[in-house]
Amino acid sequence: MTTVPTPVPPSSGKEPRTERGRRTLRKLLDSAAAEFGEKGFHDASITGITSRAGTALGTFYTYFDSKDEVFRALVNDMSDRVRMVAREALAGEMTALATERAALAAFLGFARDHKEIYRIVDEAEFVDPASYRRHYETTAQRIGERLRKGGESGEFREGLGEAHAWAIMGMNVFLGLRYCIWSEDASIEEITEAAASILQKGITRQPG
Amino acid sequence: MTTVPTPVPPSSGKEPRTERGRRTLRKLLDSAAAEFGEKGFHDASITGITSRAGTALGTFYTYFDSKDEVFRALVNDMSDRVRMVAREALAGEMTALATERAALAAFLGFARDHKEIYRIVDEAEFVDPASYRRHYETTAQRIGERLRKGGESGEFREGLGEAHAWAIMGMNVFLGLRYCIWSEDASIEEITEAAASILQKGITRQPG
Repeated sequence: MTTVPTPVPPSSGKEPRTERGRRTLRKLLDSAAAEFGEKGFHDASITGITSRAGTALGTFYTYFDSKDEVFRALVNDMSDRVRMVAREALAGEMTALATERAALAAFLGFARDHKEIYRIVDEAEFVDPASYRRHYETTAQRIGERLRKGGESGEFREGLGEAHAWAIMGMNVFLGLRYCIWSEDASIEEITEAAASILQKGITRQPG
Repeated sequence: MTTVPTPVPPSSGKEPRTERGRRTLRKLLDSAAAEFGEKGFHDASITGITSRAGTALGTFYTYFDSKDEVFRALVNDMSDRVRMVAREALAGEMTALATERAALAAFLGFARDHKEIYRIVDEAEFVDPASYRRHYETTAQRIGERLRKGGESGEFREGLGEAHAWAIMGMNVFLGLRYCIWSEDASIEEITEAAASILQKGITRQPG
Protein backbone atom coordinates (compact mmCIF):
# COMPACT_ATOMS: atom_id res chain seq x y z
CA MET A 1 0.00 0.00 0.00
CA THR A 2 2.41 2.63 1.17
CA THR A 3 5.73 3.44 -0.36
CA VAL A 4 8.67 2.81 1.88
CA PRO A 5 11.02 5.74 1.40
CA THR A 6 14.58 5.45 0.33
CA PRO A 7 16.39 5.39 3.65
CA VAL A 8 18.04 8.60 4.71
CA PRO A 9 21.82 8.45 4.38
CA PRO A 10 22.83 7.88 7.99
CA SER A 11 26.30 9.41 7.84
CA SER A 12 27.85 11.40 5.10
CA GLY A 13 29.96 9.11 3.01
CA LYS A 14 28.00 6.02 4.05
CA GLU A 15 25.08 6.26 1.64
CA PRO A 16 24.35 3.01 -0.15
CA ARG A 17 25.30 3.27 -3.82
CA THR A 18 23.42 0.27 -5.18
CA GLU A 19 19.85 -0.96 -5.06
CA ARG A 20 21.07 -3.93 -3.07
CA GLY A 21 22.74 -1.58 -0.59
CA ARG A 22 19.54 0.38 -0.21
CA ARG A 23 17.63 -2.83 0.51
CA THR A 24 20.19 -3.81 3.14
CA LEU A 25 19.96 -0.40 4.78
CA ARG A 26 16.16 -0.65 4.74
CA LYS A 27 16.37 -4.06 6.40
CA LEU A 28 18.74 -2.71 9.06
CA LEU A 29 16.41 0.21 9.82
CA ASP A 30 13.35 -2.07 10.04
CA SER A 31 15.29 -4.39 12.34
CA ALA A 32 16.39 -1.40 14.41
CA ALA A 33 12.72 -0.35 14.72
CA ALA A 34 11.85 -3.82 16.02
CA GLU A 35 14.85 -3.95 18.36
CA PHE A 36 14.47 -0.43 19.84
CA GLY A 37 10.68 -0.72 19.90
CA GLU A 38 10.79 -3.96 21.86
CA LYS A 39 13.74 -3.37 24.16
CA GLY A 40 14.14 0.38 24.41
CA PHE A 41 17.37 2.21 23.65
CA HIS A 42 19.42 1.09 26.62
CA ASP A 43 18.73 -2.63 26.31
CA ALA A 44 18.83 -2.69 22.52
CA SER A 45 22.09 -3.86 20.95
CA ILE A 46 23.76 -3.71 17.57
CA THR A 47 24.02 -7.50 17.48
CA GLY A 48 20.30 -7.65 18.24
CA ILE A 49 19.71 -5.51 15.14
CA THR A 50 22.00 -7.46 12.82
CA SER A 51 20.64 -10.76 14.09
CA ARG A 52 17.06 -9.60 13.29
CA ALA A 53 18.24 -8.35 9.90
CA GLY A 54 20.17 -11.54 9.18
CA THR A 55 23.26 -9.54 8.27
CA ALA A 56 26.84 -9.69 9.46
CA LEU A 57 28.01 -7.25 12.10
CA GLY A 58 30.41 -5.73 9.57
CA THR A 59 27.46 -4.85 7.34
CA PHE A 60 26.05 -2.72 10.14
CA TYR A 61 29.26 -0.72 10.32
CA THR A 62 29.12 -0.14 6.58
CA TYR A 63 26.21 2.20 7.31
CA PHE A 64 26.40 3.24 10.96
CA ASP A 65 29.14 4.04 13.43
CA SER A 66 27.23 3.34 16.64
CA LYS A 67 23.95 2.50 18.36
CA ASP A 68 23.36 6.24 18.80
CA GLU A 69 23.76 6.79 15.10
CA VAL A 70 21.37 4.05 13.99
CA PHE A 71 18.83 5.33 16.54
CA ARG A 72 19.09 8.85 15.13
CA ALA A 73 18.73 7.53 11.57
CA LEU A 74 15.70 5.51 12.68
CA VAL A 75 13.92 8.52 14.23
CA ASN A 76 14.49 10.49 11.02
CA ASP A 77 13.35 7.51 8.97
CA MET A 78 10.14 7.17 11.04
CA SER A 79 9.53 10.89 10.68
CA ASP A 80 9.97 10.61 6.88
CA ARG A 81 7.66 7.64 6.67
CA VAL A 82 4.89 9.42 8.58
CA ARG A 83 5.30 12.35 6.20
CA MET A 84 5.15 10.14 3.11
CA VAL A 85 2.18 8.11 4.33
CA ALA A 86 0.25 11.33 4.90
CA ARG A 87 1.31 12.73 1.56
CA GLU A 88 0.18 9.63 -0.32
CA ALA A 89 -3.21 9.83 1.35
CA LEU A 90 -3.61 13.36 0.01
CA ALA A 91 -3.40 12.57 -3.69
CA GLY A 92 -6.16 14.06 -5.81
CA GLU A 93 -8.61 16.87 -5.21
CA MET A 94 -9.87 17.23 -1.68
CA THR A 95 -11.31 19.97 0.46
CA ALA A 96 -8.98 21.38 3.08
CA LEU A 97 -10.97 19.70 5.84
CA ALA A 98 -10.99 16.36 4.02
CA THR A 99 -7.23 16.74 3.71
CA GLU A 100 -6.80 17.03 7.49
CA ARG A 101 -9.07 14.06 7.93
CA ALA A 102 -7.19 11.94 5.40
CA ALA A 103 -3.83 12.90 6.90
CA LEU A 104 -5.03 11.80 10.36
CA ALA A 105 -6.50 8.55 9.02
CA ALA A 106 -3.22 7.78 7.27
CA PHE A 107 -1.23 8.50 10.43
CA LEU A 108 -3.53 6.33 12.58
CA GLY A 109 -3.25 3.48 10.08
CA PHE A 110 0.53 3.78 10.10
CA ALA A 111 0.61 3.84 13.91
CA ARG A 112 -1.53 0.69 14.13
CA ASP A 113 0.86 -1.08 11.75
CA HIS A 114 3.98 0.33 13.40
CA LYS A 115 3.12 0.62 17.07
CA GLU A 116 6.81 0.91 17.92
CA ILE A 117 6.83 4.44 16.50
CA TYR A 118 5.54 5.97 19.73
CA ARG A 119 8.14 4.34 21.93
CA ILE A 120 10.93 5.24 19.52
CA VAL A 121 9.93 8.87 18.99
CA ASP A 122 9.15 9.33 22.69
CA GLU A 123 12.47 7.83 23.72
CA ALA A 124 14.21 10.23 21.34
CA GLU A 125 13.28 13.00 23.80
CA PHE A 126 15.92 11.50 26.08
CA VAL A 127 18.33 9.77 23.72
CA ASP A 128 18.40 12.26 20.85
CA PRO A 129 16.54 15.47 21.75
CA ALA A 130 17.43 17.24 18.51
CA SER A 131 15.71 14.55 16.40
CA TYR A 132 12.71 14.57 18.73
CA ARG A 133 12.32 18.28 18.35
CA ARG A 134 12.87 18.21 14.59
CA HIS A 135 10.21 15.53 14.18
CA TYR A 136 7.53 17.64 15.82
CA GLU A 137 8.68 20.94 14.39
CA THR A 138 8.61 19.67 10.81
CA THR A 139 5.28 17.93 11.35
CA ALA A 140 3.78 21.14 12.74
CA GLN A 141 5.22 23.09 9.79
CA ARG A 142 3.49 20.78 7.34
CA ILE A 143 0.18 21.19 9.14
CA GLY A 144 0.73 24.95 9.25
CA GLU A 145 1.34 24.95 5.51
CA ARG A 146 -1.95 23.13 4.93
CA LEU A 147 -3.77 25.61 7.17
CA ARG A 148 -2.30 28.47 5.14
CA LYS A 149 -3.46 26.92 1.88
CA GLY A 150 -6.91 26.25 3.31
CA GLY A 151 -7.07 29.90 4.33
CA GLU A 152 -6.09 31.02 0.84
CA SER A 153 -8.73 28.85 -0.79
CA GLY A 154 -11.32 30.30 1.56
CA GLU A 155 -12.15 27.00 3.23
CA PHE A 156 -10.41 27.74 6.51
CA ARG A 157 -10.87 30.93 8.44
CA GLU A 158 -8.23 33.61 8.53
CA GLY A 159 -5.75 34.03 11.33
CA LEU A 160 -4.80 30.39 11.72
CA GLY A 161 -1.15 30.06 12.61
CA GLU A 162 1.49 28.05 14.35
CA ALA A 163 -0.48 27.54 17.56
CA HIS A 164 -3.41 26.07 15.63
CA ALA A 165 -1.01 23.73 13.84
CA TRP A 166 0.46 22.55 17.15
CA ALA A 167 -3.03 22.07 18.59
CA ILE A 168 -4.01 19.87 15.63
CA MET A 169 -0.78 17.89 15.84
CA GLY A 170 -1.39 17.30 19.55
CA MET A 171 -4.91 16.06 18.84
CA ASN A 172 -3.58 13.62 16.27
CA VAL A 173 -0.72 12.35 18.43
CA PHE A 174 -2.92 11.70 21.46
CA LEU A 175 -5.68 10.07 19.42
CA GLY A 176 -2.99 7.76 18.05
CA LEU A 177 -1.66 6.99 21.52
CA ARG A 178 -5.11 6.14 22.85
CA TYR A 179 -6.66 4.38 19.85
CA CYS A 180 -3.68 2.80 18.10
CA ILE A 181 -1.08 2.06 20.76
CA TRP A 182 -3.02 1.45 23.96
CA SER A 183 -6.13 -0.02 22.44
CA GLU A 184 -7.95 -0.33 19.13
CA ASP A 185 -11.43 -0.21 20.64
CA ALA A 186 -12.73 2.31 18.11
CA SER A 187 -12.46 2.36 14.34
CA ILE A 188 -10.19 4.78 12.54
CA GLU A 189 -13.36 6.13 10.92
CA GLU A 190 -14.88 6.96 14.32
CA ILE A 191 -11.70 8.61 15.55
CA THR A 192 -11.16 10.73 12.46
CA GLU A 193 -14.84 11.71 12.57
CA ALA A 194 -14.41 13.00 16.13
CA ALA A 195 -11.32 15.00 15.17
CA ALA A 196 -12.77 16.32 11.91
CA SER A 197 -15.95 17.43 13.67
CA ILE A 198 -13.87 19.52 16.07
CA LEU A 199 -11.99 21.09 13.16
CA GLN A 200 -15.22 21.68 11.26
CA LYS A 201 -17.39 23.22 13.93
CA GLY A 202 -15.73 23.04 17.33
CA ILE A 203 -17.50 21.46 20.27
CA THR A 204 -20.08 24.15 21.04
CA ARG A 205 -23.71 23.85 20.09
CA GLN A 206 -24.31 25.90 16.98
CA PRO A 207 -27.08 28.48 17.16
CA GLY A 208 -30.20 27.85 15.08
CA MET B 1 -1.14 31.55 44.14
CA THR B 2 -1.84 27.86 43.87
CA THR B 3 -2.37 25.44 46.68
CA VAL B 4 0.24 22.77 46.93
CA PRO B 5 -1.59 19.54 47.65
CA THR B 6 -0.96 17.34 50.60
CA PRO B 7 1.52 14.86 49.21
CA VAL B 8 0.15 11.47 48.31
CA PRO B 9 1.20 8.79 50.77
CA PRO B 10 4.03 7.10 48.91
CA SER B 11 3.78 3.67 50.48
CA SER B 12 1.14 2.33 52.75
CA GLY B 13 2.30 2.69 56.31
CA LYS B 14 4.68 5.54 55.45
CA GLU B 15 2.25 8.45 55.45
CA PRO B 16 3.48 11.43 57.46
CA ARG B 17 1.42 11.81 60.63
CA THR B 18 2.37 15.35 61.56
CA GLU B 19 2.35 18.73 59.83
CA ARG B 20 6.13 18.74 60.08
CA GLY B 21 6.25 15.33 58.42
CA ARG B 22 4.04 16.55 55.59
CA ARG B 23 6.35 19.52 55.06
CA THR B 24 9.37 17.23 54.92
CA LEU B 25 7.65 14.93 52.43
CA ARG B 26 6.71 17.98 50.31
CA LYS B 27 10.34 19.13 50.39
CA LEU B 28 11.53 15.67 49.32
CA LEU B 29 9.07 15.58 46.40
CA ASP B 30 10.04 19.08 45.27
CA SER B 31 13.70 18.11 45.46
CA ALA B 32 12.94 14.92 43.54
CA ALA B 33 11.26 17.02 40.83
CA ALA B 34 14.39 19.16 40.55
CA GLU B 35 16.73 16.14 40.58
CA PHE B 36 14.78 13.99 38.09
CA GLY B 37 13.95 17.02 35.95
CA GLU B 38 17.58 18.04 35.67
CA LYS B 39 19.32 14.67 35.47
CA GLY B 40 16.69 12.23 34.24
CA PHE B 41 15.82 9.02 36.04
CA HIS B 42 18.98 7.06 35.41
CA ASP B 43 21.45 9.73 36.51
CA ALA B 44 19.35 10.99 39.39
CA SER B 45 20.26 9.70 42.84
CA ILE B 46 18.66 9.49 46.24
CA THR B 47 21.59 11.41 47.76
CA GLY B 48 21.04 14.08 45.09
CA ILE B 49 17.46 14.39 46.33
CA THR B 50 18.28 14.51 50.02
CA SER B 51 21.11 16.93 49.41
CA ARG B 52 18.74 19.30 47.56
CA ALA B 53 16.17 18.88 50.33
CA GLY B 54 18.75 19.43 53.07
CA THR B 55 17.61 16.27 54.84
CA ALA B 56 19.44 13.23 56.08
CA LEU B 57 19.46 10.09 53.97
CA GLY B 58 17.55 8.28 56.74
CA THR B 59 14.72 10.79 56.37
CA PHE B 60 14.29 9.75 52.75
CA TYR B 61 13.82 6.14 53.80
CA THR B 62 11.18 7.20 56.28
CA TYR B 63 8.98 7.88 53.27
CA PHE B 64 10.33 5.92 50.32
CA ASP B 65 11.96 2.55 49.81
CA SER B 66 13.78 3.29 46.55
CA LYS B 67 14.46 5.65 43.67
CA ASP B 68 11.70 3.90 41.72
CA GLU B 69 9.25 4.57 44.51
CA VAL B 70 10.00 8.26 44.88
CA PHE B 71 9.75 8.62 41.10
CA ARG B 72 6.33 6.96 41.09
CA ALA B 73 5.18 9.18 43.97
CA LEU B 74 6.48 12.22 42.07
CA VAL B 75 4.55 11.39 38.88
CA ASN B 76 1.37 10.95 40.92
CA ASP B 77 2.11 14.17 42.79
CA MET B 78 2.63 16.10 39.51
CA SER B 79 -0.59 14.63 38.16
CA ASP B 80 -2.44 15.73 41.33
CA ARG B 81 -0.99 19.21 41.15
CA VAL B 82 -2.06 19.69 37.54
CA ARG B 83 -5.53 18.55 38.54
CA MET B 84 -5.68 20.95 41.50
CA VAL B 85 -4.30 23.91 39.56
CA ALA B 86 -6.99 23.41 36.93
CA ARG B 87 -9.69 22.96 39.54
CA GLU B 88 -8.75 26.18 41.34
CA ALA B 89 -8.93 28.07 38.06
CA LEU B 90 -12.50 26.88 37.63
CA ALA B 91 -13.97 28.42 40.77
CA GLY B 92 -17.14 30.44 40.22
CA GLU B 93 -19.65 30.56 37.41
CA MET B 94 -18.23 30.08 33.95
CA THR B 95 -19.52 28.93 30.62
CA ALA B 96 -18.40 25.48 29.52
CA LEU B 97 -16.12 27.01 26.90
CA ALA B 98 -14.63 29.49 29.38
CA THR B 99 -14.00 26.52 31.66
CA GLU B 100 -11.91 24.74 29.00
CA ARG B 101 -10.04 27.95 28.37
CA ALA B 102 -9.34 28.58 32.06
CA ALA B 103 -8.21 24.97 32.55
CA LEU B 104 -5.74 25.31 29.68
CA ALA B 105 -4.45 28.68 30.91
CA ALA B 106 -3.92 27.21 34.38
CA PHE B 107 -2.07 24.23 32.94
CA LEU B 108 0.16 26.43 30.78
CA GLY B 109 0.96 28.66 33.75
CA PHE B 110 1.86 25.61 35.81
CA ALA B 111 4.03 24.20 33.01
CA ARG B 112 5.95 27.47 32.69
CA ASP B 113 6.60 27.46 36.43
CA HIS B 114 7.41 23.74 36.52
CA LYS B 115 9.07 23.00 33.23
CA GLU B 116 10.40 19.73 34.64
CA ILE B 117 6.89 18.25 34.49
CA TYR B 118 7.23 17.27 30.83
CA ARG B 119 10.50 15.44 31.26
CA ILE B 120 9.23 13.65 34.35
CA VAL B 121 5.86 12.59 32.93
CA ASP B 122 7.43 11.68 29.58
CA GLU B 123 10.15 9.62 31.24
CA ALA B 124 7.45 7.79 33.19
CA GLU B 125 6.50 6.14 29.89
CA PHE B 126 9.73 4.17 30.24
CA VAL B 127 10.38 4.11 33.97
CA ASP B 128 6.85 3.66 35.30
CA PRO B 129 4.38 2.99 32.45
CA ALA B 130 1.42 2.44 34.78
CA SER B 131 1.75 5.95 36.26
CA TYR B 132 2.20 7.43 32.78
CA ARG B 133 -0.97 5.81 31.58
CA ARG B 134 -2.91 6.69 34.72
CA HIS B 135 -1.89 10.34 34.40
CA TYR B 136 -3.34 10.67 30.90
CA GLU B 137 -6.35 8.45 31.51
CA THR B 138 -7.46 10.42 34.56
CA THR B 139 -6.80 13.74 32.81
CA ALA B 140 -8.90 12.63 29.82
CA GLN B 141 -11.65 11.46 32.17
CA ARG B 142 -11.81 14.90 33.79
CA ILE B 143 -12.06 16.58 30.39
CA GLY B 144 -14.71 14.04 29.34
CA GLU B 145 -16.70 14.84 32.47
CA ARG B 146 -16.61 18.56 31.63
CA LEU B 147 -17.73 17.81 28.06
CA ARG B 148 -20.64 15.80 29.44
CA LYS B 149 -21.68 18.65 31.73
CA GLY B 150 -21.36 21.16 28.90
CA GLY B 151 -23.59 18.92 26.81
CA GLU B 152 -26.19 18.74 29.58
CA SER B 153 -26.25 22.50 29.98
CA GLY B 154 -26.75 22.87 26.24
CA GLU B 155 -23.50 24.76 25.64
CA PHE B 156 -21.67 21.89 23.98
CA ARG B 157 -23.13 19.82 21.20
CA GLU B 158 -24.35 16.31 21.77
CA GLY B 159 -22.31 13.22 21.00
CA LEU B 160 -19.02 14.39 22.48
CA GLY B 161 -17.20 11.50 24.05
CA GLU B 162 -13.88 10.00 24.97
CA ALA B 163 -12.21 10.69 21.61
CA HIS B 164 -13.07 14.39 21.85
CA ALA B 165 -11.62 14.48 25.36
CA TRP B 166 -8.37 12.87 24.15
CA ALA B 167 -8.20 15.31 21.24
CA ILE B 168 -8.54 18.27 23.61
CA MET B 169 -5.96 16.84 26.00
CA GLY B 170 -3.53 16.37 23.09
CA MET B 171 -4.03 19.98 21.99
CA ASN B 172 -3.28 21.18 25.51
CA VAL B 173 -0.21 18.97 26.01
CA PHE B 174 1.40 19.97 22.70
CA LEU B 175 0.65 23.67 23.17
CA GLY B 176 2.39 23.37 26.53
CA LEU B 177 5.38 21.59 24.98
CA ARG B 178 5.78 24.24 22.29
CA TYR B 179 4.93 27.41 24.23
CA CYS B 180 6.00 26.61 27.78
CA ILE B 181 8.87 24.14 27.58
CA TRP B 182 10.62 24.85 24.28
CA SER B 183 9.94 28.56 24.11
CA GLU B 184 7.73 31.23 25.63
CA ASP B 185 7.48 33.29 22.46
CA ALA B 186 3.72 33.76 22.71
CA SER B 187 1.58 34.81 25.66
CA ILE B 188 -0.64 32.34 27.48
CA GLU B 189 -3.54 34.58 26.39
CA GLU B 190 -2.65 34.13 22.70
CA ILE B 191 -2.26 30.37 23.06
CA THR B 192 -5.51 29.86 24.95
CA GLU B 193 -7.28 32.08 22.40
CA ALA B 194 -6.08 29.82 19.57
CA ALA B 195 -7.23 26.68 21.38
CA ALA B 196 -10.55 28.17 22.51
CA SER B 197 -11.30 29.37 18.98
CA ILE B 198 -10.91 25.81 17.69
CA LEU B 199 -13.23 24.51 20.40
CA GLN B 200 -15.72 27.29 19.75
CA LYS B 201 -15.98 27.16 15.98
CA GLY B 202 -13.39 24.84 14.48
CA ILE B 203 -11.01 26.07 11.82
CA THR B 204 -13.38 26.29 8.85
CA ARG B 205 -14.77 29.53 7.55
CA GLN B 206 -18.30 29.89 8.83
CA PRO B 207 -20.99 30.53 6.23
CA GLY B 208 -22.60 33.95 6.20
